[in-house]
Amino acid sequence: MFLPKEVKFFDLFDKQAENIVRAAAFYKKLVDNGDFTPENVREMHELEHYGDELTHTTINTLNETFITPFDREDILALANRLDDIVDGIYLISNRFHLYKIQKPTEFSRKLAATIESTTKALQKALASLRSNKNMKETLHQCVEINRLENEGDVLRDEAISSLFENEKDPLMVIKHKELYELAELVTDSCEHVANLVESILVKNN
Amino acid sequence: MFLPKEVKFFDLFDKQAENIVRAAAFYKKLVDNGDFTPENVREMHELEHYGDELTHTTINTLNETFITPFDREDILALANRLDDIVDGIYLISNRFHLYKIQKPTEFSRKLAATIESTTKALQKALASLRSNKNMKETLHQCVEINRLENEGDVLRDEAISSLFENEKDPLMVIKHKELYELAELVTDSCEHVANLVESILVKNN
Amino acid sequence: MFLPKEVKFFDLFDKQAENIVRAAAFYKKLVDNGDFTPENVREMHELEHYGDELTHTTINTLNETFITPFDREDILALANRLDDIVDGIYLISNRFHLYKIQKPTEFSRKLAATIESTTKALQKALASLRSNKNMKETLHQCVEINRLENEGDVLRDEAISSLFENEKDPLMVIKHKELYELAELVTDSCEHVANLVESILVKNN
Repeated sequence: MFLPKEVKFFDLFDKQAENIVRAAAFYKKLVDNGDFTPENVREMHELEHYGDELTHTTINTLNETFITPFDREDILALANRLDDIVDGIYLISNRFHLYKIQKPTEFSRKLAATIESTTKALQKALASLRSNKNMKETLHQCVEINRLENEGDVLRDEAISSLFENEKDPLMVIKHKELYELAELVTDSCEHVANLVESILVKNN
Repeated sequence: MFLPKEVKFFDLFDKQAENIVRAAAFYKKLVDNGDFTPENVREMHELEHYGDELTHTTINTLNETFITPFDREDILALANRLDDIVDGIYLISNRFHLYKIQKPTEFSRKLAATIESTTKALQKALASLRSNKNMKETLHQCVEINRLENEGDVLRDEAISSLFENEKDPLMVIKHKELYELAELVTDSCEHVANLVESILVKNN
Repeated sequence: MFLPKEVKFFDLFDKQAENIVRAAAFYKKLVDNGDFTPENVREMHELEHYGDELTHTTINTLNETFITPFDREDILALANRLDDIVDGIYLISNRFHLYKIQKPTEFSRKLAATIESTTKALQKALASLRSNKNMKETLHQCVEINRLENEGDVLRDEAISSLFENEKDPLMVIKHKELYELAELVTDSCEHVANLVESILVKNN
C-alpha cells in the first residue's frame, strides 16, 4: 500500500516504540529491585540517547522525502511526542538515584507496572498504523492507553493522599510526591501519542 | 455573515465557555464554603468530562467541514486551549479534596474570585467573535483577561510570600503553595485563549 | 540577499537577543551580589515587558508582510520561544525576592554563569542566521547551546542532590529546589530556540 520511502517512517516509529518498551521494562525492574545505581542510570541514559538519535533520523528523513504516509507535521509531532516518553522514564530514574531511594514504595511499583502496560499498548497502536485494515485494532489500543492513563491518575492521587497521611518527614514527602507525579507524566505522554494517532486516523480515513 | 456550517463552531465555543463559567462558579462556591466533598469533586469531574466531549465534537465537526469561519488550526487550538481551563479547575478541586483542606485560605478565596471573573470575560470575548462588528468588544474583553491574569499573578506571589512567612508546618506549605500555583495556572490558561482570539482577529480583519 | 522587509525580522530577533543577554547579565550580577531588591526586580520586570513588546512587534510585522525570510510559523515560533527566555529570567528573579534569599548558593551562582554563556551563544546563533554563508557558525553555536544546556542539567542535579544531603530546614529545601529547577528551565528554553534554528536551517538549505 505504501511506497518504500514511506515505509521508512513506520520502521522508525517501530524502532522508537521498541526502545520505549525496553526502557519501561528496565525501569520496572529497577523499581522492583530498588536498584537505581549509577551504572543502571547510565544504561537508562543510553536508551534515552538512542531515542534522541531515532528522533533526529526521523526529522532528517522527513526533510529528504517528498511523499509521506501522512501529514509532515503529524510525523514530526509523533517523533517528538514519542521522544518525550523515554525522556520522562530517564528523568524519573535519575531522580530515584539522586534522592537515594533504596526502597521504592508499593505505589511506585504499581505505577511502574502501569507505565510498562501503557508502552506495550502504544507499541501495538503504532505497529497497526501501517495498514488501514488495522484501524479497529489501532483505535482499540488507543482506548486501552486512555484507560491506563486514567489508572495512572488514580494511582498517583491515592499515592499522594497516602503520603501526606502517613509520611511525617517533609523531605521524604517532597521526594516521593515528585516521583509519583513524574511517573504519572510518563503515562500522560503516552496518551498524547495515542491522541495524535487517533487524529491521524480520522484525517486519513 | 457566516454559513450555517460555520455557525456550528461558534455554537460549540459558546457551549464550552458556558461550561467553563459554570465550573468556575461552582469552584468559587466550594472554596468559599470549604466544601470539597467526594460528591462535589465528582460533580466537578462531570463538568470536566462534558468539556472533553465538546472538544471531541469540535474536532470531529472540523474533520467533516470544508469551509470554516477561520483557519482550521486556530479552531483546533481554540478547542484544546478551552479544554485546558476546565481540566485545571477540576485538577485543583481534586487537590483540595486529597489534601483534606477544610478551611481554604483568604488568598484561595480571592484567587477563586479572580478565576470566576476571568472566565466571564472569556465567555464575552468568545460570544463577540461571531461578528466583525464586535471587534472592539472582543479586544476589550481580551485586555480585561490580561488584566485579570496579572491580578492572579500578584495574588499568587503575595500568597506564597505570606505562606513562607506565617506557616511553620512544611507539609501545609507544600499543599498551599501548590494550590496557589494551580489557581494561577487557570487564569494563565484563560490568557492563552485570549491571545489566540487576538491573533485570530488580526489574521481575519 | 534578503529584501528590506525581510531584514526587519532579523533586526527584531537581534533586538530580542540583545534584551535576553542584558537580562542574563543583570541576573548574574544580582545572584553574585545577593541583591534581589524590589527596585532590581522591577528593573528586571521592565526587561521582561520590553521583550513582550518586541514579540508583539514581530507578530504584527508578520501579519503585514507577504514575503518572509523563512516560514511564517517558524518566525512566530521563534519570537514566542525567545520571549520565554526573559520570562523565565524574570520569574526566577522574582522568586529570589519573594523567598528573601540574601545569600544565593554557590550552585545558583554557577547556574547564573551557565545561563549568561548560553544567552551569548544564542545571540551569535541568531545574528549568523542573516546569511547562508554563516551556516557553519550557526550550527556551531547551536551545538554550544546544547552543550551548555547539558552543563545546566548536571549542575541542577548536583545542586538538588547536595541540598537534600546538607540542608535540614524543609522550607529552605523547597525554596532552593525550585530556584535550581527554574534556573535550568532558562537554559532549556535557550535549547528550544537552538532546536528551532537548526530545523529552520535544514528546511532552507
